Amino acid sequence: NWAYSRERGLKWVVALLVGMATALVAYTIDMFIRGVAGAKFTLISRLIVDCDNCFWSPFLSYIAVNVLLVSVAAFAVAFIEPVAAGSGIPEIKCYLNGYKIPHVVRLSTLLCKAGGVMFSVAGGLAVGREGPMIHSGAVLAAGISQGKATSLPLDSGLFKTFRNDHMKRDFVASGAAAGVSAAFGSPIGGVLFSLEEGASHWNQALTWRTFFCTMISSFTLNLLLSGTSPGVKWGYLNQPGLVDFGEFVAQSYTVVEIPFFVIIGVVGGLSGAAFNAINTKLTLFRMRFIPVSKPWARFAEALFIAALSATVSFLFAFFIFECRPEPTTVYEGITLRRFTCPEGEYNDMATIFFTTQEEAIRQLFHNRDAFSYPTLAFFMFAYFGLAVVTYGASVPSGLFVPCILTGCAFGRLAGHALEHLFPSIVHDPGTYALVGAAAFLGGVVRMTISLTVIILESTNDISYGLPVMLTIMVSKIVGDLFNEGLYDIHIDIKHIPFLGWEPERLMENLTAADIMSTPVNVLPYFVRVRDVVVLLESNTHGAFPLCGIDENGLPSDQFVGIILRHEIITLLKRRAFVDYANAVRSHVDWLDFVDDYPRYPDIVDIRADIFDEDMDKFMNLSPYMNPAPITTQPVAAATAVFRLFRGLGLRHMVVVDRMRRIMGIVTRHDLVHLEDKFHRDGSPRDVPWHN
Amino acid sequence: NWAYSRERGLKWVVALLVGMATALVAYTIDMFIRGVAGAKFTLISRLIVDCDNCFWSPFLSYIAVNVLLVSVAAFAVAFIEPVAAGSGIPEIKCYLNGYKIPHVVRLSTLLCKAGGVMFSVAGGLAVGREGPMIHSGAVLAAGISQGKATSLPLDSGLFKTFRNDHMKRDFVASGAAAGVSAAFGSPIGGVLFSLEEGASHWNQALTWRTFFCTMISSFTLNLLLSGTSPGVKWGYLNQPGLVDFGEFVAQSYTVVEIPFFVIIGVVGGLSGAAFNAINTKLTLFRMRFIPVSKPWARFAEALFIAALSATVSFLFAFFIFECRPEPTTVYEGITLRRFTCPEGEYNDMATIFFTTQEEAIRQLFHNRDAFSYPTLAFFMFAYFGLAVVTYGASVPSGLFVPCILTGCAFGRLAGHALEHLFPSIVHDPGTYALVGAAAFLGGVVRMTISLTVIILESTNDISYGLPVMLTIMVSKIVGDLFNEGLYDIHIDIKHIPFLGWEPERLMENLTAADIMSTPVNVLPYFVRVRDVVVLLESNTHGAFPLCGIDENGLPSDQFVGIILRHEIITLLKRRAFVDYANAVRSHVDWLDFVDDYPRYPDIVDIRADIFDEDMDKFMNLSPYMNPAPITTQPVAAATAVFRLFRGLGLRHMVVVDRMRRIMGIVTRHDLVHLEDKFHRDGSPRDVPWHN
Repeated sequence: NWAYSRERGLKWVVALLVGMATALVAYTIDMFIRGVAGAKFTLISRLIVDCDNCFWSPFLSYIAVNVLLVSVAAFAVAFIEPVAAGSGIPEIKCYLNGYKIPHVVRLSTLLCKAGGVMFSVAGGLAVGREGPMIHSGAVLAAGISQGKATSLPLDSGLFKTFRNDHMKRDFVASGAAAGVSAAFGSPIGGVLFSLEEGASHWNQALTWRTFFCTMISSFTLNLLLSGTSPGVKWGYLNQPGLVDFGEFVAQSYTVVEIPFFVIIGVVGGLSGAAFNAINTKLTLFRMRFIPVSKPWARFAEALFIAALSATVSFLFAFFIFECRPEPTTVYEGITLRRFTCPEGEYNDMATIFFTTQEEAIRQLFHNRDAFSYPTLAFFMFAYFGLAVVTYGASVPSGLFVPCILTGCAFGRLAGHALEHLFPSIVHDPGTYALVGAAAFLGGVVRMTISLTVIILESTNDISYGLPVMLTIMVSKIVGDLFNEGLYDIHIDIKHIPFLGWEPERLMENLTAADIMSTPVNVLPYFVRVRDVVVLLESNTHGAFPLCGIDENGLPSDQFVGIILRHEIITLLKRRAFVDYANAVRSHVDWLDFVDDYPRYPDIVDIRADIFDEDMDKFMNLSPYMNPAPITTQPVAAATAVFRLFRGLGLRHMVVVDRMRRIMGIVTRHDLVHLEDKFHRDGSPRDVPWHN
Repeated sequence: NWAYSRERGLKWVVALLVGMATALVAYTIDMFIRGVAGAKFTLISRLIVDCDNCFWSPFLSYIAVNVLLVSVAAFAVAFIEPVAAGSGIPEIKCYLNGYKIPHVVRLSTLLCKAGGVMFSVAGGLAVGREGPMIHSGAVLAAGISQGKATSLPLDSGLFKTFRNDHMKRDFVASGAAAGVSAAFGSPIGGVLFSLEEGASHWNQALTWRTFFCTMISSFTLNLLLSGTSPGVKWGYLNQPGLVDFGEFVAQSYTVVEIPFFVIIGVVGGLSGAAFNAINTKLTLFRMRFIPVSKPWARFAEALFIAALSATVSFLFAFFIFECRPEPTTVYEGITLRRFTCPEGEYNDMATIFFTTQEEAIRQLFHNRDAFSYPTLAFFMFAYFGLAVVTYGASVPSGLFVPCILTGCAFGRLAGHALEHLFPSIVHDPGTYALVGAAAFLGGVVRMTISLTVIILESTNDISYGLPVMLTIMVSKIVGDLFNEGLYDIHIDIKHIPFLGWEPERLMENLTAADIMSTPVNVLPYFVRVRDVVVLLESNTHGAFPLCGIDENGLPSDQFVGIILRHEIITLLKRRAFVDYANAVRSHVDWLDFVDDYPRYPDIVDIRADIFDEDMDKFMNLSPYMNPAPITTQPVAAATAVFRLFRGLGLRHMVVVDRMRRIMGIVTRHDLVHLEDKFHRDGSPRDVPWHN
């Protein structure tokens, strides 16, 4: 029992470490961006004022600085770890769903992602840092929980019992949650995020530990920020995450405004669907013409986007703006940009473009009359365009902040318009900015409960619950009429066998026999080494059913158990051969099987160690097989099989008939992309899809 | 597809109705208690002042009023629906876990529970109304989702597709969540409550719908309260649930105070464990000497407790108090009681005892110097004692509020003491009151994530997240050293086969063969009516494995499928007999099977309709059986079987060998209370436990 308690305790230690490490990464990213972006904006502002409103020198400097910064991020992603591109949320979703994209939780990915996002954000791209924070938290959790970094190589020897897919996945879920918590100051939202995006079971112990991890992450970040933020005493914990929505004035809406929120939700859903449709086309274009295999093209594209973003923001700030008199009191922490305006006034477009995104969000929420309507409209369209172009380029790029900014600008515009039309009902356009942000973000990502809670925690005011929820609900319903959420689109495009929440409708008329793969590669449980090697070399299947042996010594069709590919390879590597001449029994225990986790050798890696004289020896697989896996029958409903896969996190299931004869095997691939294999009415297409 | 969309839409309609109905019930309860308790306290205060501080007349009046009020609640529970006693949370936990306690979601239970709790709270018992609100929400959801009240009888004919255990359970989960939301103004906490207490799967669609339901509940209650509360404009939504913790001053703690919070957590865990231990003894005493079968004794006990509670509070307020000068500004909405004090002063014990519990909580949180230390200490012990005695009596009685009150008083005392000892560190005893409440409540109920979130939402301030979470964590760890949470204790005492989160440690060394029940009652799929009737009359099993028939026409031991008891009875009732002479085929479709849901007739109810000449007819069960249920093998690990039950919500699983011969059956009963059957080392006890 001591071992058991120790393991339980260690899990909490890992959760603590993951939370703290994630916060530290978030803090580093924040400090870097604040410092660099602040210096950059100050420099450009000074250049403009100093040279008496000249155009070219600050314009070219601005482009140069931004392209230089982005080039670091683009280089890391294009040449070192392409999987560090984008937000990382689709990759983490797949990981938690049970499908591992190569390199997704490696140390080098973390470095490229967390390091890269500093530069891509500081370089003025329309990208956020929250998605990358979530991915970073996940990688940290994977590394810390395993007590080793396989790439380095560095092995602490600790946490050996955590070295399997199941345990590691649980920790990664906690790490992703810690990332959300650090990014938004949203510990509850983080837990719900990892549940919504990753869970199939509700595991109370894991959820509670995840909550601890998110709390620690939020708390550590608070503590670090309290030590370095101006005007905050060390140890006073009121810094709510990287993205801070600022304090809302509560109760600034009434029941009669709810129809307006619904309308905003509809618009958010429509524009989110448009965003996704445009980005889908762009992604397909990228996959065709600038694929991962052409790093130089990917690098050049990212630099081009950086130059484009800099150009747009600079031109807007220089040519489309209004000079507004500086207010006597400015919302806390906001920098007004004068640019070409006379003294005592500020350039409203520059004020929103030449600042960090978090500050821009706070301004849109709280700075009541700071921006003219044309400025808001132009800003909205510009940010929409830049964000849709940038997501998918070869840089780490979060999607939340650009969506919030676009949605905020839209919501504030709508709020002002409604205030004009219904002055007795609408009083606070800031509420509409919040609702607009929720609507557009919901329309793009289509998350539900976790998105609602993240927004609520960022506003720190539960009374916005109903409007935010309603808007997200409406925008999801409207958006779902046209396409999926952007993360799911990216997963689909890559043809990953991702199991959704519910089986496809098509599956309702099918049985296990319809969807299973057949014929199956079967091994007798007592088998010649040659046969094993030939089979392993002929395919890449992850598991093989084992059959019995009849009275004549021939393989029967009777199912006796299942064995994993890497288990067979470990047995080959450990030379667990039965040699009739010597009758040596080899000892292979479970530690041997986890030894190479998570990078098991494949047959090619060990082929040379199997000598010719070994090939006619035999292997007895039965001590190492799973003799009682979950099986199903040909007549079972395909939907029932799906639910078993989803509920139990299975990867394969053998189909046996009533006499336990092996009829086929169902894998994840057989359960998704059914439309490739069947017509809408359930009849099979003519394409050969069995392998 | 239309039917599918319609069903999906209807689920949301049900969620909307459940949320609104739950809020309406909460509102009614609140109005009643406020009105009656307010009138009662005013009356007694006036009696005291009018008769110039006499003792007996107000004392006896107070007892009489309280006993009268409580008698209504006690009568309803003792004589009408005994299942309406207590908080209802253990019953709802069991329901969501898949075990249905009779009458638990009946209309009459709702009336006794919601009606009764008004009187038990107004009658001055140390009970809260939140547990009963949760139970009420669950019953409302069960009733509304089925579109009928079987007791009345009233059948709207609506929602027929929702009439099965699975769907109904989902709605009940939403209803319970709506109850939490209404009680605490905690929509997120409500969702987490129903997940923590009830879920096995994480079902995204259900969770989102549940969140909608809790939001609507919270919103509707807000709306109703905004219309009737003084000083609030109709439609302004700032009334946060029934239990309102009041507004906290944020950031009133620093990092260095965390060790103090941990210590408070330890004390909370110890005192919570003591509370549970005492209440366990009392419950066993009650089961033995005043069982449900003696309603008069139960009724008398409740009246005695009412008199006791009234006596204690009155004597305390009369004899143990301090007269304190009335402050110039009083915390919003608080009534100071003068009692026997001179004009311009107030009696601090009376102020805390002669008020609603919610107001008392707010005073303990926010009213800095309102109470002397002895008053706090006496109040704490008195409330502890009264609460431990009351829970389990024959009245609806929530556990949260009494625990919060006790914990608050303790926390405030501790806070004041620490402030004396460490004046440079501790500044706000109100924070300690909150932490104390979390510690004691956590020590009693041992909930984790949902409790934390409920408390956070009640305080409306996320910055208390870490202290609250840490305290709850510590108090749970400490408490778990001694006993289980009080809800689980009550479930255990009733010997309900409740599946926990994890299999018992003992199970790790056992296989399916060790735990399965054997021999099994098996029916051939083609069977004589007489054999069916005899089998059904001989036991109460819920499901029967069906076997095949060999070449001689005799039952084989081959497993072919499983059929539920109530399905067989429906077939008998519908006379689905194969009469060789007439060869009539009967038509029984799925609507016939759901017709009697949820109160299926048993064999005795239909026995008279089976005539003697039917008994030698045959039934073909094969079209109605489930031909491909999940099965397991004798060698499968018992823990794996447990996880299948937990994950898939199973009630029975047939154990078959490799040849698919029926070896045994595993039910929920076989998976819990293993210590009744096995020694700690896994060897079976000698008691006969197979049935």
